[in-house]
Amino acid sequence: MAIKYEFIKQCKQSGARLGRVHTPHGIIETPTFMPVGTQATVKTMSPEELKALDAQIILSNTYHLFLRPGHEIVKKAGGLHTFMNWDRPILTDSGGFQVFSLSERRKITEEGVEFRSHLNGEKLFISPEKAMEIQNALGPDIMMAFDECPPYPATYEYVKQSTERTSRWAERCLAAHQRKHDQGLFAIVQGGMFEDLRVQSAKDLTSMDFPGYAIGGLSVGEPKHLMYEVLDYTVPHLPFDKPRYLMGVGSPDALVEGSIRGIDMFDCVLPTRIARNGTTMTSQGRLVIRNAKFAEDFGPLDPNCDCYTCKNYSRAYIRHLLKADETFGIRLTTYHNLHFLTRLMKNVREAIMNDCLLDYRDQFFAQYGLLDNDKGF
Amino acid sequence: MAIKYEFIKQCKQSGARLGRVHTPHGIIETPTFMPVGTQATVKTMSPEELKALDAQIILSNTYHLFLRPGHEIVKKAGGLHTFMNWDRPILTDSGGFQVFSLSERRKITEEGVEFRSHLNGEKLFISPEKAMEIQNALGPDIMMAFDECPPYPATYEYVKQSTERTSRWAERCLAAHQRKHDQGLFAIVQGGMFEDLRVQSAKDLTSMDFPGYAIGGLSVGEPKHLMYEVLDYTVPHLPFDKPRYLMGVGSPDALVEGSIRGIDMFDCVLPTRIARNGTTMTSQGRLVIRNAKFAEDFGPLDPNCDCYTCKNYSRAYIRHLLKADETFGIRLTTYHNLHFLTRLMKNVREAIMNDCLLDYRDQFFAQYGLLDNDKGF
Repeated sequence: MAIKYEFIKQCKQSGARLGRVHTPHGIIETPTFMPVGTQATVKTMSPEELKALDAQIILSNTYHLFLRPGHEIVKKAGGLHTFMNWDRPILTDSGGFQVFSLSERRKITEEGVEFRSHLNGEKLFISPEKAMEIQNALGPDIMMAFDECPPYPATYEYVKQSTERTSRWAERCLAAHQRKHDQGLFAIVQGGMFEDLRVQSAKDLTSMDFPGYAIGGLSVGEPKHLMYEVLDYTVPHLPFDKPRYLMGVGSPDALVEGSIRGIDMFDCVLPTRIARNGTTMTSQGRLVIRNAKFAEDFGPLDPNCDCYTCKNYSRAYIRHLLKADETFGIRLTTYHNLHFLTRLMKNVREAIMNDCLLDYRDQFFAQYGLLDNDKGF
Repeated sequence: MAIKYEFIKQCKQSGARLGRVHTPHGIIETPTFMPVGTQATVKTMSPEELKALDAQIILSNTYHLFLRPGHEIVKKAGGLHTFMNWDRPILTDSGGFQVFSLSERRKITEEGVEFRSHLNGEKLFISPEKAMEIQNALGPDIMMAFDECPPYPATYEYVKQSTERTSRWAERCLAAHQRKHDQGLFAIVQGGMFEDLRVQSAKDLTSMDFPGYAIGGLSVGEPKHLMYEVLDYTVPHLPFDKPRYLMGVGSPDALVEGSIRGIDMFDCVLPTRIARNGTTMTSQGRLVIRNAKFAEDFGPLDPNCDCYTCKNYSRAYIRHLLKADETFGIRLTTYHNLHFLTRLMKNVREAIMNDCLLDYRDQFFAQYGLLDNDKGF
């Protein structure tokens, strides 16, 4: 098996667990947050910077790389690790989510999804088998099964049929996967906001032998308390000895709440996307650096942060760079936001070790200015 | 005097000279190329990267910083060095060139120039005194006198009057400059493409005691042989014991030809600007990385280069990043181009030391694919 989960300990205050995911490119301490490098680069960052801010694993997108530059080119380059000069673990999604959210005029059949490229309108097709072919060519440590992610809200009947198809597709993915020795394939539990469908999905998928399980279809517009409810009734149906990955979630509060519910891995474009607009995550909550009040503020972005950005640059300078459309400003906010989340997850791991994650949550939320979980980021 | 020129030796093959410019923030080995950081940042680069690629001094723009964020804010931040986290020497231009080329509806009088901001149309005024006030607030090691840069072509009469005014403005700059102890003010020789006006300008300005002299008004559209002619008859009228700075010139061939003619300092946006379009300088000449032929080229940008970009990334990857509008691609091409020029200048200094700069030029031009000097970059 390419991927192995090592359980270390559970927090006495919750279902949170400390562990390690062993991959062909090294060990990931969990719970962990994975920065997103959609097009084989975490926007604005170098690999060295990602290592300096303690990114243990990054995510890249099958859909985008399939469209451009094409998985065959990445394969010829020696795989994604060589192509992008990143020697730590990589996870690629299956393209499912993007096919449904980015492409135009998609048509879903039992065979797969026909869609038009959002870049040039080209007609393309991804099936479970194709998603495996692409990811086998890209060569990440962790691949994702090709799933259908239903929108929110959606009817029970729609979600039921979609979830059942996702299970059938998962089986086809498992059969088509050609590199089980050095790439681990995770299945994706769907089921929308319906408990019986989530439980059924988890049962279907755990009856097949995947080295890890993701929970998909969350953070798609539903209120956060609903997401936490879904986790509460889904996670218990996932195997204890496999990593659990909550897809598309990256707000600080949800990372903590997800960890409390036994999630090991998270990914989201949130920290990098908001950084490009000048919104930063700080120990006192969100800070929009473009605001006029920071024009003559010569202190750091976050006085409680020791990252490269906060050690060397002032709010006034970063604000100037963003107002002047200077790339280096976005580098600085991106670095800081990613560092904020990797440090948060380090704190979460320490709190699990010390059996005090609920106390840590309350303290963090109070400082961060979160009064209830739905406010979020 | 804040700025001192130390002569080391002249190349036996030409007027090229090896030297050192001593500044409050350290020593610059000359001849040197200065990367341009228009808005208090060399586009896409961090200070650490600039140091790694051996940038000894950078240039920033008075006009841009006056408009945004405003020189008073930079002053309150502790000056430009602190504001942008750069502890090596900085040179700022006077804003003269930008007032004439970027702003709208400018009106030149003996007092100064009234113009409208290219950002918001605000009516503004820069005089020699104002240019000094701004640069004294910004705090660079080297400041430039406020000059008028005539267009090319221009009539003899126009250039004559403009050049005489530039001399009168230089005198006013010298009188208004408040920080002679820690900021060196360079004068700018103008005179268009007219020998007698260039010589007169040089005489006027050298009769005043500036610690350095620039040659302005070149690389404004004239053929390169004309630029070299101007250097040939102007440089001999500049003092031997002061640094000589050729403004706005940064093509590889012109850096070598300028050095041969006794120039010590150069600046230009060329390497960083073309990098953002994917045009790179290599030992075999220019290489446009977006070209389809590089899609499956897994070799480095320049096989004869040992920079960060060339050691770690392939042409195929850099092409992918640029096609996908990814910032990291521009970081890589920018780094490479700047490294290419700093290494070129290092080679030029070594060739002067070894009395073989003309031989080096011929060899470099042949390899670079330059058949005559006007082809340039």
